[in-house]
Parts: sequence; structure tokens; C-alpha cells
Amino acid sequence: MRTTLFSVGDVPVVLWTPDDDATGPRPLILLGHGGGRHKQDPELVALAARLVGEGGYAVACADAPNHGDRPADAELDRVVADFPARIAAGEDRAALIAEAQALMAGRTVPEWRAVLDHLRQQADVGAGPVGYWGISLGCGLGVPFVAAEPRVRAAVLGHGGAPNLAAAAAAITVPVAFLVQWDDERVPRGQSLALFDAFGAAQKTLHANPGRHGEVPGHEHDAALRFFQRHL
Amino acid sequence: MRTTLFSVGDVPVVLWTPDDDATGPRPLILLGHGGGRHKQDPELVALAARLVGEGGYAVACADAPNHGDRPADAELDRVVADFPARIAAGEDRAALIAEAQALMAGRTVPEWRAVLDHLRQQADVGAGPVGYWGISLGCGLGVPFVAAEPRVRAAVLGHGGAPNLAAAAAAITVPVAFLVQWDDERVPRGQSLALFDAFGAAQKTLHANPGRHGEVPGHEHDAALRFFQRHL
Repeated sequence: MRTTLFSVGDVPVVLWTPDDDATGPRPLILLGHGGGRHKQDPELVALAARLVGEGGYAVACADAPNHGDRPADAELDRVVADFPARIAAGEDRAALIAEAQALMAGRTVPEWRAVLDHLRQQADVGAGPVGYWGISLGCGLGVPFVAAEPRVRAAVLGHGGAPNLAAAAAAITVPVAFLVQWDDERVPRGQSLALFDAFGAAQKTLHANPGRHGEVPGHEHDAALRFFQRHL
Repeated sequence: MRTTLFSVGDVPVVLWTPDDDATGPRPLILLGHGGGRHKQDPELVALAARLVGEGGYAVACADAPNHGDRPADAELDRVVADFPARIAAGEDRAALIAEAQALMAGRTVPEWRAVLDHLRQQADVGAGPVGYWGISLGCGLGVPFVAAEPRVRAAVLGHGGAPNLAAAAAAITVPVAFLVQWDDERVPRGQSLALFDAFGAAQKTLHANPGRHGEVPGHEHDAALRFFQRHL
């Protein structure tokens, strides 16, 4: 697997491609990393290796604002700095996280669309079908992105259920696979199931597994690969 | 795929095996058919063809009491004959079906254990690992069977949620994949999720798909094959 690091505007991006000399178009999977992680998080690299090695896909991930190699974002810092006081004043932690993710999504939707424009001009990517995979923060940013971006034809989302995602979820009509951690300590189960309900996709499937928020059983990487193979 | 029909005691059974001359042991998957269907229901034959052709498994299914090639069961007939009057008197239809399935399971658990004894003595099956796949009636009969039968090492169950299955489900500790139809008109969604919760298995996974009770998306046959490949 070939790893290429570059920036699109101010956004640091990693692109993984097969070790062949084939030029595009080939299907492209965009990954969204989790909160507090970054574009080369080891779990993402492992997933990318499977998608590249077994699927022959190009795979890319961009650092989200205030993550990875990006400079501090003053507005986001200001919002998050207030959280401890707001939680102390009785506000719901999950609702605050959803508010911060919505603010970030206002940046990442246009950023990721520009990244996609750039990637599709690369000889070893080209203008093939596009998929998206993102859980947790990658779901909070991914739902508005997939809703806004008609080039995305299939999405794996999950570990999220913020009610403020419902309208964008309803606008998603491409196939969705939605991952739920049955014992998620951060996302109430009812909110996860409601978000699955909200997706406008006729072809949607929910996979639930025991475990806490950050855990993903390895067989869900197999399932994601096969999901993309079915739909891209 | 080779199809063999025989009986174990009074129970008609179909066995599907690969078209090779290899002798066992090979993994064996027992299928439970749906209500009003039988051991050679076309959907089961299609599933068996995948499991035999791609997994190299032996696959077998027995007719449930009052189904397929079995003579009428007077006691079951008597119980079911009362259902219209009991529903008219205000009893819950799903609870009555669960009652009938529990009565049937009292017969099928020992019958299927005898079928399993017989199959494992066949040269082209042998004493390999055993899996079980059954939804709807195949879940109502399958949960007590898998709970009672230590030779079963992995089970695909679903389209069921009868509360009277909870104790047997809690006794199941082998890996379970549980299928839910999100718009099931017969099984309340909350009961399905509660049955998934009840399984004692540390490795359990829930797959939910839009659609009504009898429908299974084709990709769940792929998923079942891979589930058995992971666990048998």
C-alpha cells in the first residue's frame, strides 16, 4: 500500500492506494476519523489496508478541525472551553458534543468536497464511485457530508445518534450501513436506533454489537469491505 | 449439490452435501424452516446451495410437526383450532403463536438431537462442528434447540422475539447472529431487541434491515456464510 501525504488548501490529507501502477478511475473511500484522533490513527490505517489490499480501492482521510496536523481553531476552542461550565450548569454532555460537531461540520463539508475534487484529478484515483466510512465524530461529520455530496454512493456510519443529525440523515438516499455499540456509554441506544430510522435510504442495514463506544469488532471491517463491494 | 431424503424415526429430513466424494468430518449446518413452510422451501434450498457450494458444508433440514411431509399432529391441531376463538376473546395473537411454538419445541428439541446423532454417523458428514440457522418459526424452535444442544457451536436466529424464549436465550453462550426485520408486522421491534439482549453469548451481533416479517435481504445469506466461516 502506498501512502501519500499532502494538503488541499489548509487541510492535511492522507491517501492510500494499491502498490500497482494502474491509473484510475478506481473506487475511492473517504474515511472520517474519531474525536481526538487523526487521519493516520492506527485503526483507520488497518481499515485502509483491508480496503486497499482486498478491495483495490483508493482510500483517503483528512484531519478534522482541531485534530491531527491542523493548527488550533480559535472559534472551536472557544466553544469547547465553555463546556465544563455548561455541564456544571446542567447542560447535557451529548448535546454539547453534538453542537460542537455541527460547528465542525460547517467547515468539513466544504473542505471534504474540495478534497474530493482534488483526489478525483489524481491519475491513480480518477472519477470513480465514492464511498464514505466514519463512526463517532466521523458519523457526526459524515452524515451532513454524505447528505450534501451526490458523488458519495454508499456510506458506513455509526456510533452516533445526535438528534440534530436527523434532517441530514433523512436526505441520505444512498445505501447506508449503520453501526451501533449495544453498550455505548456515550450514545443512548434509543438515539442510535432513531438515527437509523431517520435515514432516507431504502437500502439501509444496522449492525449492533456488544461493547462500549470506541470498540469495533474486527468482523465489521470485513462487513464494510463487502458493503462497499456490493454498492460501489 | 447432492440432495438426500430420509427419515429419522418419524421425522422427514433433507440432507444437502457437496458433489464431491470426500468423506467427513465436515461442518454441518442445521436449518429450521419457517411457519407454514417445509424442509425444501425454495428460500432454504437457495441458502443451502450457498452454504454447500461456497462453504463446503453439509446442510440439513427436518420438517417441523404439522409441516411438510408429516402427518397431522392431533394435539397441535387442537391447540391451534382454539386460536380464532381465543383471539376473538381478546388474547394476543403473538402470544398464542409463541405458545404453539413452545409446544412444538417440546417435540423438535429431542427430534433434532436424534437427527443430529444420525447425521454425524453418515460418512459424508461425520462428527464435525455444527451450526444452526433458523428465523421466524426456525427461531422459536431454534432457541430452545441451541440452548439444549452443546454440539451446536454458532447460530443464526431472528425474526422472533417471543418473551417465553428469554430463559433459553440466556442459556445460549455460543456466538449468535440475530436478524431483525425493522418493519416486522408480527414481531414488535421492542421484543426483538429484548431477545437480542437476552442471549447469553459474549459474541453476538444484530443485523436489522427494513422490510416485513418474511423478507430477508440476499446479503444476509452472504453474512450468514461468513458468520459460520468465522465460528465453525
